[in-house]
Amino acid sequence: MKVLSIDVRFEYPVHFTSGAFDPANDTLAQSIKRKEPARRHRVLLVIDRGVVDARPTTWPGEIARYFEHHGIELVSQIVLPGGESIKEDAEALTLLLGAMDRHAMDRQSFVVIVGGGAVLDMAGYAAAVTHRGLRVIRLPTTVLSQGDSGVGVKTGLNAFGKKNFVGTFSPPFAVINDVRFLETLERRDLLAGMAEAVKVALIRDRTFFQWLRREAPRLAACEMPPVTELVRRSAELHLTHIETSGDPFELGSARPLDFGHWAAHKLESLTHNRLRHGEAVAIGMAIDTLYSAKTRLCREEVAETVLETLQRIGLSVWHPSLDERRPDGRPRVLDGLREFREHLGGELTLTMLRDIGESVEIHEVDEALLVHCLDTLRARGARVGAA
Amino acid sequence: MKVLSIDVRFEYPVHFTSGAFDPANDTLAQSIKRKEPARRHRVLLVIDRGVVDARPTTWPGEIARYFEHHGIELVSQIVLPGGESIKEDAEALTLLLGAMDRHAMDRQSFVVIVGGGAVLDMAGYAAAVTHRGLRVIRLPTTVLSQGDSGVGVKTGLNAFGKKNFVGTFSPPFAVINDVRFLETLERRDLLAGMAEAVKVALIRDRTFFQWLRREAPRLAACEMPPVTELVRRSAELHLTHIETSGDPFELGSARPLDFGHWAAHKLESLTHNRLRHGEAVAIGMAIDTLYSAKTRLCREEVAETVLETLQRIGLSVWHPSLDERRPDGRPRVLDGLREFREHLGGELTLTMLRDIGESVEIHEVDEALLVHCLDTLRARGARVGAA
Repeated sequence: MKVLSIDVRFEYPVHFTSGAFDPANDTLAQSIKRKEPARRHRVLLVIDRGVVDARPTTWPGEIARYFEHHGIELVSQIVLPGGESIKEDAEALTLLLGAMDRHAMDRQSFVVIVGGGAVLDMAGYAAAVTHRGLRVIRLPTTVLSQGDSGVGVKTGLNAFGKKNFVGTFSPPFAVINDVRFLETLERRDLLAGMAEAVKVALIRDRTFFQWLRREAPRLAACEMPPVTELVRRSAELHLTHIETSGDPFELGSARPLDFGHWAAHKLESLTHNRLRHGEAVAIGMAIDTLYSAKTRLCREEVAETVLETLQRIGLSVWHPSLDERRPDGRPRVLDGLREFREHLGGELTLTMLRDIGESVEIHEVDEALLVHCLDTLRARGARVGAA
Repeated sequence: MKVLSIDVRFEYPVHFTSGAFDPANDTLAQSIKRKEPARRHRVLLVIDRGVVDARPTTWPGEIARYFEHHGIELVSQIVLPGGESIKEDAEALTLLLGAMDRHAMDRQSFVVIVGGGAVLDMAGYAAAVTHRGLRVIRLPTTVLSQGDSGVGVKTGLNAFGKKNFVGTFSPPFAVINDVRFLETLERRDLLAGMAEAVKVALIRDRTFFQWLRREAPRLAACEMPPVTELVRRSAELHLTHIETSGDPFELGSARPLDFGHWAAHKLESLTHNRLRHGEAVAIGMAIDTLYSAKTRLCREEVAETVLETLQRIGLSVWHPSLDERRPDGRPRVLDGLREFREHLGGELTLTMLRDIGESVEIHEVDEALLVHCLDTLRARGARVGAA
């Protein structure tokens, strides 16, 4: 027997900038050229329809001029509809792979993806499996993707009704967070994106949570300075986690960043993605925070603070789909426990709250108590909804 | 800007054994249990039809008994046709992903794949992308896969007429090379598999090449002791390369192990896979060895020794598909140069021979000289064919 042991190092920069396609801004051009400055590089651009629609008169001509100005060959521009449903669109995958073939993309060619998490996931997956991985530069355009998934190492497609059933671990070549994209978002999307910031603060950074609580009114009003600060701090916490967890490709079974996600994933599928991911995460966190309090993992006041902060930001803690039941009366959202265990593998591992900024893992749940949490949230959600 | 830097370590054992499904042989069972010895593990088995056909009376009952004996749950057995065409079969991929879903395979579940390189590639890809990677144990069944691809870190599917257009870098959980599978192979497959051994010897290990030259008559007669030794030494050289190259996921553009492969890949597609991969590699090596001599990278005697050794083993150095021409008279095989560059990315990099056991990279080719090499091989191939 021989044991093969290999170490693979991945390195990528995450930039924070404003106006990435302004010809005077060379962040993107330098990112493309950083390994071979002299070569004429080739780029296939994939762009979220929502981004194009937000600036109909200037795009995509502005983008074409940017690449021309910097001596980079733009071989094609592909516009994809955004939103979670693109992640289960087999035709979109075929279209992207076909474009990679037709434009003779090679392992040193670039796929630049401009969009929300779903478009980043779909185009990122296509690029990750073409020739076993092209160079990908992500320009996440939402609060959620700039602070969380867009700066990380994963791609994922949905299949068989399961979120991220198919995917890869594929570190990007570079990430560019451009604050100007956030300015074009609708309020609902801005708020939804803040849920993952609350999440990472709750399990990792008490000071950040206190800041979120203090800034909640300005965040709810979508004021850009605190929104930008929220994105930057979320991204940094997320990157620190990837770098220091010791298991960036999740070869073990722990997933501490998935607080609130077993219910969130299920709510997204129960609502056929009418709930945004962030909205579902807010509700998932509310459920697990209440559960943490009811099982005395954390104090009652902690739960109250969390729920109140979510609601002050404008995030709902309840949704009617929580009332959907199987014929035997069991809430369908509880099926998310089994699916979550299956996705992670091994025994069930859920992240719960011990205090603000401190998490704890559990491996068994009391379903009756979970149902009780849903009842509490229904009452609270209805009350606030009526206010 | 923040630069994310992560190191990912992959470790897997490669075992050499005989009779892996004999209940008394615990290599496979221990491989499955090595991380969590106490857990009841779940296995989905994918098996090459050629392997089943070679032992119709004992399989698959023998396999089911093996897992039962060792307390491992066998959730399903899927039989796939072997051979290169399975790698472009979209239905096979859908079938495999559907099985992963139906049997609720999770990231700690096992996919055990028994077969030649093509089945290992197809089932390996399906397992690699399910939940971003299940645990895969490979039991390669051919000379080629036991000595080369089956012990490595890649998966690949063919698409758009391009070999391995889609794929991943996915180190397996374990590899088990069982010599008994080799005993059931047909002579043609045994011989074809030896081409990659000649290749790795030529570019890496002069002593191994001299051994191959000496043992050529016994190898041509398919005597198992030298065949087993050939597989073991090939696998070890291949593993050493992966471990010491410094670039196991090929993030750079060099591919020193691809000696002879630009023509080989094209020949496989020109013959619609009627040529085995190894047969195509033998011809590809013959072309590049001759070219090395004609450009004075190596001495004439080196080329003569290489061609003679290939032919003594029973490998042909010419095939009629080398005569296929485009309307402008250019041999179609030369299109392989462009496709090879595209797959690797960056500039064209071809591995040539400086001496037995020593390679050299070139970045430009003289196509007229390559055509001259084809003429030489046609004459030589015809001469030996007539003998």
